[in-house]
Amino acid sequence: MKKILLLTLFGAFLTTNIYANWFASEPKKSSKAIDNSKIYTLKLAETWPSNFPIFGDATKNFKKLAEAMSNGRLKIRIDSKNKHKSALGIFDFVKSGRYDLGHSGSYYWKGKDINTLFFTSMPFGMTSKEQYAWFNYGGGQQLMDKVYAKHGMKSVIGGNTGNQMGGWFQKEINTVADLHGLKMRIPGFAGEIMAEVGVKPVNIPAGELYTALDRGTIDALEWVGPSLDLRMGFHKVAPYYYTGWHEPGSELQFLINLKKYHSLPADLQNILLAAMKLSAYQMSNQSEFESAKNWASMKKAYPNIKVKTFPEPVFAALRAANQKLLKKLAASNPLAKEIIKSQANYLQKARAWTAISDQSYLNSQSK
Amino acid sequence: MKKILLLTLFGAFLTTNIYANWFASEPKKSSKAIDNSKIYTLKLAETWPSNFPIFGDATKNFKKLAEAMSNGRLKIRIDSKNKHKSALGIFDFVKSGRYDLGHSGSYYWKGKDINTLFFTSMPFGMTSKEQYAWFNYGGGQQLMDKVYAKHGMKSVIGGNTGNQMGGWFQKEINTVADLHGLKMRIPGFAGEIMAEVGVKPVNIPAGELYTALDRGTIDALEWVGPSLDLRMGFHKVAPYYYTGWHEPGSELQFLINLKKYHSLPADLQNILLAAMKLSAYQMSNQSEFESAKNWASMKKAYPNIKVKTFPEPVFAALRAANQKLLKKLAASNPLAKEIIKSQANYLQKARAWTAISDQSYLNSQSK
Repeated sequence: MKKILLLTLFGAFLTTNIYANWFASEPKKSSKAIDNSKIYTLKLAETWPSNFPIFGDATKNFKKLAEAMSNGRLKIRIDSKNKHKSALGIFDFVKSGRYDLGHSGSYYWKGKDINTLFFTSMPFGMTSKEQYAWFNYGGGQQLMDKVYAKHGMKSVIGGNTGNQMGGWFQKEINTVADLHGLKMRIPGFAGEIMAEVGVKPVNIPAGELYTALDRGTIDALEWVGPSLDLRMGFHKVAPYYYTGWHEPGSELQFLINLKKYHSLPADLQNILLAAMKLSAYQMSNQSEFESAKNWASMKKAYPNIKVKTFPEPVFAALRAANQKLLKKLAASNPLAKEIIKSQANYLQKARAWTAISDQSYLNSQSK
Repeated sequence: MKKILLLTLFGAFLTTNIYANWFASEPKKSSKAIDNSKIYTLKLAETWPSNFPIFGDATKNFKKLAEAMSNGRLKIRIDSKNKHKSALGIFDFVKSGRYDLGHSGSYYWKGKDINTLFFTSMPFGMTSKEQYAWFNYGGGQQLMDKVYAKHGMKSVIGGNTGNQMGGWFQKEINTVADLHGLKMRIPGFAGEIMAEVGVKPVNIPAGELYTALDRGTIDALEWVGPSLDLRMGFHKVAPYYYTGWHEPGSELQFLINLKKYHSLPADLQNILLAAMKLSAYQMSNQSEFESAKNWASMKKAYPNIKVKTFPEPVFAALRAANQKLLKKLAASNPLAKEIIKSQANYLQKARAWTAISDQSYLNSQSK
């Protein structure tokens, strides 16, 4: 009898813990009867203009999945930048409830909350494959939840661009001195690192970048990689394509207004999260596919594109600048320190594994 | 008026095409009213024993997701090997309808249909990241549909083990001659390649592998990688851990009996596919996480493990054997030829992109 009671209590303990963890990564079960006639219309604001490739496909896939899985009980209305007119207003839109959902990039909000910086991609950080493992099993989602709960929101993975290229350069970079005074379009945290080693980060609207690079208004720029660089045409006006270091696996984000989320029946909450995550993985696959396809097209049309990698002394200077800025960030608040530590600890283990698996395999087959 | 009619026809044309493509990769929409009281119980047979880590977690995650998203209208009953007693019976179970669903590895069925071989991982083939892009955007799922439709089944991604290690060896492999007469547990197509260069592939039950390696009954074996090798203890009895080439990204599979699938309401069909795919990606993340964690543990407890990579002349011999066997396969039936060509064409583009993205990044940061 005692044994049975103990087992029951142990069972209850397990159950409580399982429930407590569900919001972070696991489906919630409903015991409520569902009113199947009720339709929930959710408005999503995205940073991207209408018909923006890949990033925009992620929200369209999400909408299709959510509506089909819910048998139309969820209706998703997507407003692109053309409609809401504020590419970088998504955080405030979803926080205030003007929109229920968002699709954007977490690092755009570092001016609003510095800790949002860590959930897109960090310079010299994890590849997309390493980072997905961190999000799902290394505590990443829980840390992201901590950051966004303060703002009444939840953020989940929104699709990866893959390893971003270091950018298009008019001249070769052989020493740190070659970076001094270099005018480069490189925004955000990577721009701050570049500034530490003498680069002059310049902010230029997307539509004017091609002309700026062509006419020498800037000496270099980074955009994404072949998946989205091809249509920008930079390969026609700059000879050097540098490999990446500053965004080794940029993850977009879906944002959810938590009040709205909690007002949904449990099955629709689960459908919403699953549709977001699945369309995120699909977008990551699409990025890889488009990069492979577009890189082949670029090389065919412009066989003289010179792919270069910064020499080690340049990386050493950039890594030192990165460490200096991370140290400052870690000192700014305890949660930042916790996130930086979690990422560094996981990266150390993950990279040792990557070294003997994918990296070793790729190197042994490219000799 | 004419314009309106034309637009309507064009709309209908688009709709038809979208519907035609949905089964392959996109959600289906239902216009039917759904009977929400009806519960569909689906029986799933998996190759793995009860509580098998990672692979078994994939089916548990799938069950949780499917049941939660459907608000209990889907009930998934998982039978592990301990129950159905036939690890390699999954194909026949699902084909015959004895089970509705399965979780296994496609390459186990090459004796039943040689074309099932191509959807797990091919020697010298794609990494998991490259292969996911091929499945989703490079025509892989459509080819897998072609193969499995003949058997009244659909197969979708079931989770990736990550790059599999080449195996545990008692002696170092410096030349092709070192492989002559080597007794190695290496099953399947990779075993056939090894046999071409003189290895004697040996089949030994999992439970006896440790002793066989320890006592010299075999000279080498391959299992998975740190994620599942750690618990097998091979690192305690063999000094050399060779990096992988034969399964650069092994994808498991979910199997669905098509007749059962078509008997489900459209929303549950969508939920079923989404739950499978999402749990597949989650398993891939878990494999990476567990590999990173377990590799750190192994190295800590056994710091003298020697990680080795076959020298290029050994790879050259293995690649030649692989090409010879692939050529034979391509000649065996037109669909095999089509799949081999699709994989080779995509790999060429994908690897050129990987070379300037992840590979270049990893190499530049490990100097």
